[in-house]
Amino acid sequence: MNALPPSLNRLIDGFAKFPGIGKKTAERMAFHLLKTDREFSVNLAKAIIDVKDQIQECPVCHNISETTPCGICTDSKRDISMICVVEDSNDLLAFEKTNEYNGLYHVLGGNLAPLDGIGPDELHVDSLLDRITESIEVIIATNPSTGGEATALYLAKLLKNKNVAVSRLASGIPVGGDIEYADEATIVSALEGRLPL
Amino acid sequence: MNALPPSLNRLIDGFAKFPGIGKKTAERMAFHLLKTDREFSVNLAKAIIDVKDQIQECPVCHNISETTPCGICTDSKRDISMICVVEDSNDLLAFEKTNEYNGLYHVLGGNLAPLDGIGPDELHVDSLLDRITESIEVIIATNPSTGGEATALYLAKLLKNKNVAVSRLASGIPVGGDIEYADEATIVSALEGRLPL
Repeated sequence: MNALPPSLNRLIDGFAKFPGIGKKTAERMAFHLLKTDREFSVNLAKAIIDVKDQIQECPVCHNISETTPCGICTDSKRDISMICVVEDSNDLLAFEKTNEYNGLYHVLGGNLAPLDGIGPDELHVDSLLDRITESIEVIIATNPSTGGEATALYLAKLLKNKNVAVSRLASGIPVGGDIEYADEATIVSALEGRLPL
Repeated sequence: MNALPPSLNRLIDGFAKFPGIGKKTAERMAFHLLKTDREFSVNLAKAIIDVKDQIQECPVCHNISETTPCGICTDSKRDISMICVVEDSNDLLAFEKTNEYNGLYHVLGGNLAPLDGIGPDELHVDSLLDRITESIEVIIATNPSTGGEATALYLAKLLKNKNVAVSRLASGIPVGGDIEYADEATIVSALEGRLPL
């Protein structure tokens, strides 16, 4: 039998639908809400709706933004001679967190996955090609996964015709990682991508 | 610099305030919301507010409920000769999930923690004593932690005067657990609580 009030069950079910949130964590979250003051719940509920209502896709780089074009595309301090091509906005965020990259981005919206019906037309490939001029360097930063690599190769082929410099993000042993525990594919990748010292 | 829209940041900050939810998980949850349809967000926001508005404390057992008294206290199929004393509603839920216990509950609302200013007056001790009659067996099911044990001893002392049967939940090696990896305190507890075969 279920001893929980229906409204609490609905909330737990809602939280449990998020990726990486199991039933147990969802329960802990719901019970936490019960203990906190009403204001926190009101603000959280508002934030959830606001995100859906205020965030849109930048028509230039397809990053998520409250303004169109987004803050990065309109930032005059940015180096417009570089475009870093990423799969998702989360990947873009990872680059921004480094505080090292100062160029522009292009969010593809995923990677090529023919079996799932995702071909070039489902990704923002055309709008990328439209942005490219000869003075631009394109850094392809799709994930080093099967789909990400396929997408990178596909883009590289398209961009060759455009006569632009194209580079691919290095893949290898993570900083602070242990070669002993690295998988074979990563070691091969690190070997192939070795740099002169 | 922060590349995320302010509304998304507010949502991430909100999710990150939950126990067990780190910054990274909060980000993944917020990005998930961006991808799902608006209806899911509306329902989640509603569930968050509903929980605060509809759930109250049962005046008898102090369990959370949408009705007063709660569904367990008013269930005529329940064995009213047993009261299981737990710290929180989450603990009650764990018992209910077993489908084995059919008695009543009493939720204390925590355990004795004098250093945090939580004495017997801060817990639902008086209302427990008010419910006790001689025909009732009390099972003290506070956690086997320092605070939980102190609370159990305190309650046992109070209940002795009431002339009722008082028992304490067994503590020992978990079912499916490994004695080799059990900590010393658990092994001592399992030894002390050994049962004749």
